[in-house]
Amino acid sequence: MKTKRNVYLKMKPLSEAREIVFQAFNELTLKSGESVTVPDAVGRILAEPVTARLSSPSFHAAAMDGIAVKAQDTYGASETRPRELLIGKNAFYLNTGHVMPPDTDAVIMIEHVNELDDSKVSIENPAFPWQYVRRMGEDIVATELLFARNHKVTPYCIGALLSGGIYEVSVRCKPKALILPTGSELVDWRQTDPQELAPGQVIEGNSYVLGKLVEACGGRFERHRMLADNLESIQAAVHKAVYGDFDCVMIIGGSSAGSEDYSRPVISRLGEVLVHGVTMMPGKPVIIGKVAGKAVFGIPGYPVSAIMAFEQFVRPLIYQLLGQPDTERSTCMVEPTRKIPSKLGVEEFLRVKLGQVGQRVVATPLPRGAGSITSITEADGIIRIPNHVEGIENQAPVAAELLRPLATIRNTVVVVGSHDNSLDVLADELRATHTGMTLSSSHVGSMGGLMAIKRGVCHLAGAHLLDTETGSYNTSYIKRYLPEMAANGQIRLVNLVFREQGLILPSGNPKGIRGLADLRRGDIRLINRQSGSGTRILLDYRLQQLDIDPTSIQGYENEEFTHMAVAVAVLSGSVDVGLGIYAAAKALNLDFVPIVTEQYDLVIPQVYFNSDNIRMLMDTIRSPGFKQRVARLGGYETENTGQVWL
Amino acid sequence: MKTKRNVYLKMKPLSEAREIVFQAFNELTLKSGESVTVPDAVGRILAEPVTARLSSPSFHAAAMDGIAVKAQDTYGASETRPRELLIGKNAFYLNTGHVMPPDTDAVIMIEHVNELDDSKVSIENPAFPWQYVRRMGEDIVATELLFARNHKVTPYCIGALLSGGIYEVSVRCKPKALILPTGSELVDWRQTDPQELAPGQVIEGNSYVLGKLVEACGGRFERHRMLADNLESIQAAVHKAVYGDFDCVMIIGGSSAGSEDYSRPVISRLGEVLVHGVTMMPGKPVIIGKVAGKAVFGIPGYPVSAIMAFEQFVRPLIYQLLGQPDTERSTCMVEPTRKIPSKLGVEEFLRVKLGQVGQRVVATPLPRGAGSITSITEADGIIRIPNHVEGIENQAPVAAELLRPLATIRNTVVVVGSHDNSLDVLADELRATHTGMTLSSSHVGSMGGLMAIKRGVCHLAGAHLLDTETGSYNTSYIKRYLPEMAANGQIRLVNLVFREQGLILPSGNPKGIRGLADLRRGDIRLINRQSGSGTRILLDYRLQQLDIDPTSIQGYENEEFTHMAVAVAVLSGSVDVGLGIYAAAKALNLDFVPIVTEQYDLVIPQVYFNSDNIRMLMDTIRSPGFKQRVARLGGYETENTGQVWL
Repeated sequence: MKTKRNVYLKMKPLSEAREIVFQAFNELTLKSGESVTVPDAVGRILAEPVTARLSSPSFHAAAMDGIAVKAQDTYGASETRPRELLIGKNAFYLNTGHVMPPDTDAVIMIEHVNELDDSKVSIENPAFPWQYVRRMGEDIVATELLFARNHKVTPYCIGALLSGGIYEVSVRCKPKALILPTGSELVDWRQTDPQELAPGQVIEGNSYVLGKLVEACGGRFERHRMLADNLESIQAAVHKAVYGDFDCVMIIGGSSAGSEDYSRPVISRLGEVLVHGVTMMPGKPVIIGKVAGKAVFGIPGYPVSAIMAFEQFVRPLIYQLLGQPDTERSTCMVEPTRKIPSKLGVEEFLRVKLGQVGQRVVATPLPRGAGSITSITEADGIIRIPNHVEGIENQAPVAAELLRPLATIRNTVVVVGSHDNSLDVLADELRATHTGMTLSSSHVGSMGGLMAIKRGVCHLAGAHLLDTETGSYNTSYIKRYLPEMAANGQIRLVNLVFREQGLILPSGNPKGIRGLADLRRGDIRLINRQSGSGTRILLDYRLQQLDIDPTSIQGYENEEFTHMAVAVAVLSGSVDVGLGIYAAAKALNLDFVPIVTEQYDLVIPQVYFNSDNIRMLMDTIRSPGFKQRVARLGGYETENTGQVWL
Repeated sequence: MKTKRNVYLKMKPLSEAREIVFQAFNELTLKSGESVTVPDAVGRILAEPVTARLSSPSFHAAAMDGIAVKAQDTYGASETRPRELLIGKNAFYLNTGHVMPPDTDAVIMIEHVNELDDSKVSIENPAFPWQYVRRMGEDIVATELLFARNHKVTPYCIGALLSGGIYEVSVRCKPKALILPTGSELVDWRQTDPQELAPGQVIEGNSYVLGKLVEACGGRFERHRMLADNLESIQAAVHKAVYGDFDCVMIIGGSSAGSEDYSRPVISRLGEVLVHGVTMMPGKPVIIGKVAGKAVFGIPGYPVSAIMAFEQFVRPLIYQLLGQPDTERSTCMVEPTRKIPSKLGVEEFLRVKLGQVGQRVVATPLPRGAGSITSITEADGIIRIPNHVEGIENQAPVAAELLRPLATIRNTVVVVGSHDNSLDVLADELRATHTGMTLSSSHVGSMGGLMAIKRGVCHLAGAHLLDTETGSYNTSYIKRYLPEMAANGQIRLVNLVFREQGLILPSGNPKGIRGLADLRRGDIRLINRQSGSGTRILLDYRLQQLDIDPTSIQGYENEEFTHMAVAVAVLSGSVDVGLGIYAAAKALNLDFVPIVTEQYDLVIPQVYFNSDNIRMLMDTIRSPGFKQRVARLGGYETENTGQVWL
């Protein structure tokens, strides 16, 4: 039933919206201090400057094992005229850290002391004053400033504080956020068997993500129980929080302008809506409000929008309450693997996978939808595309904010090309056997993989390109599409697996499909693969052999990019059949009619073939562990796995 | 009493010692897994790969508020020929996130729907299949790999895991370290009033520093009670730990080759000493041992040595047990402010302060001693000087490992020059009033400050240079030593304070010193300041006026770099008098005989004078808060504070 809708306030650019937050809440006082012991202060922010109560060292101390002397007594000593000293009179044995005896000001290392008898030693070199002595206050002088206020306490600081006689410090109380998940579709994971989730139900996860992000920036949070889309109950919860001890409230969900979106009405009833809608993506439908001097945020329900809204508006506020600057991620210049169009007037946070290929750090865009949580969990970086820019050119260097250290990114093997489930196994085995190594794969089809090799944006490509004239795989395509590299022997070809391709069908095969010939029937809805994929080439070849006109097939124009996506389309009942690998059908308990056993290879430029990373990859591919796990997926043969064809 | 000494094993270079650790313990199995709920897994390492149990979305879902339709029903719709649809028959109102009704495959945004009556709508544009639909499995397909093993769980991951129907994961158990502080000189801060510390006693802090560092890299620790230097009791504690559930043991202290150093005998009695002594600085006297297959480390007692030994040997081991690569800090090219000699054959970890001055990041070396904990707490970065290098040239770019983000370093005001206690107050006030701003000061005397300005390695310099001919301060020195900048009006001079300089004397003034003339007496031991400091210039000028021969003064050749160090020398009883500011005497409850009220200014190149950072600094200097706090130090006048002389 169509009902009354809200209207967005004028949408604000991100920078303007952030400024509004800073201005609106800058009268919020810094959090006051609470006293904690020094070891417990690690990670906390000092509310008061700390000055030393004690000097360190608190006495003149020997810095070497040896004898303490008065330097003046040693002047003139030499190899030819050694100086004798009397133990207990003008020479005193002592070890590192011991107190210098009265009237001594230098230490001579034990290695340079000749013991004449129990009471006498001789030395052959003079000492200079304060030689090998750690003087009182050398490191810390009582009363001096150890740490200014707003300093973040590190483990190192414990050492300086305890040495300076400081046992307790005043640290800022943690800002407290209420996180309120709303939406009638939400269910609690603690009470829901994932196998019994009804259509329309969604497992609530945003509140935990945001809660942990609050903790990570030094705050604490309380998670309100989930509320259905009901204005009164949401309003009551927000009211209680802002008049309680919370510093801010995040209402998750219902921040858009739809008929069931209550965040804005709640905030405008209780206080003031400062911003509704920001020209950023993801995160557009964010609300920034002020109620009783407290910040109340309407956080969009799509997981990546929720994260972006938090990081752009809530986190800076928490830092402000702690007297800390907002974090800035370190950046790195990267080259996108393809042209990325974008919308004028919107600032986009494009999630990308990164990998170092040759001298360049290449960036492969991840799905751009706000609903794709994996686009942020798989991301190595974020490219911010400003609102005045219409897109980014292929291979034009742009800055990416790093989500992982550059060292990790350098240890990433970038594979682009055809999709196969054994790549998941390979990624896991590689990480298990080679600490710090990561496999990052992007699925653009076999031809896309060859093109990526050509453009130098990956270390290797997965391909299963059938030469329909010879029946061979990949080699003729390599010669044709990478002619120079092939001619110079700069391409290696390694078998990963042989695998069964066939028809993926709903469980029980309700339409009684026995082979591709059934596509003639007209009542069968197909899900296709994208052109350039090996599977598409196989399908088109077989259709041609069977003399079936592709345009006569329902759904021939609908394309998916992976075997699993094809299987999901079949599972969801929206199509009747798709061509794909057995492993995908088996994973989702679907029926399968084999069509062909095909060869799936890795195409590797010679220049990377002998690199450490690829050698480790090859070790993993050839390991019994990898082959056994692949075999367990079903539909695979691993007899030739690891074999080098070229 | 001189007793039997151990001898170092052959010292090993750092890289070789690290390799020995990796080899010796690589048979240590990875930590096994324990099951935790997904929100509790944040920060932990996956012990098993995680595959999704549920697809996400788990149903075809509307991605917009609007009507669900079958795309085919909309083909041909146009402005001139709108298509009518019947609500409940071939059009269904729904909101974002709702389940797509059976047989629909597209959503038309509510904004593009004309409501004709309660049962009918019309549209003016066709929909394409799957338009504004989030398809089942679009983000996550059940059975696919969500995260490989050894993946570190982030807050973002919670979203993907819960969406994928995963509520619990297996994470690696935390490696457990026993930390055993040894040394008869140690006292426990919980039981010791810092004011009652006896000479020779040291507050034990290393165990807490190392414990928090263990936690920061994903392990846990138990702190053993402190043990005196006693072989049997240390041996018993280590024995119990290695045959218990500890993964490694750190014996702190006694790792050197002295007569009271028991770490090596303990390890060699129980097992094997693999390395004793590494050619690194700080951290040389580290011991790496193996007992019953467990790692036992002898950690040097100097705080910076302890930290370096931990970071080079223990942390990599903990990461190895967790299946993680060792962390690499990000680096930045920096230019040292002065030539840094170093010892061939030793790899040095030089702690430096960093600041961006103009286009360059300049690095000011901090004290190099292993006992100086403040050299690491104040450090912004570490320059590693390899063992085959004899030193680093002044202004030759070298890489520094960053201990703080570059953004923080860019917000640091670098002041080099004369020392004054009011700079501490300024640092704290600046941080308090300007979030993220830091003042970093290095004390090299007034002339050193002018030279730093000349070489462009600081933003401003503190100076109190008396022109003995005119009685004026600083201006004549600026003209003489910065002639071009002065001539072109490129130097600004701002008053910070006027302050009392005088004789700092032991409390009660036991030698009855009344003025500088008493230095003639011969029984008075002086502590001097370094040449080039304003205080030294003052002293030399006054001695000349009094016609006292400097070489006749006991201790004239002994120099300190700060007022506080002079005061400490007086407090410790090793000298009778020093020239310095009242604030230093007052801080340590010493007596003071005023000599002169002098002008202490800040010298600021014009090019920085109008920068945001310096403007904020000037605001702070002129604030009543700053002036009041300085006045409370004693011996200061702030009437001219903030006044611009040049």
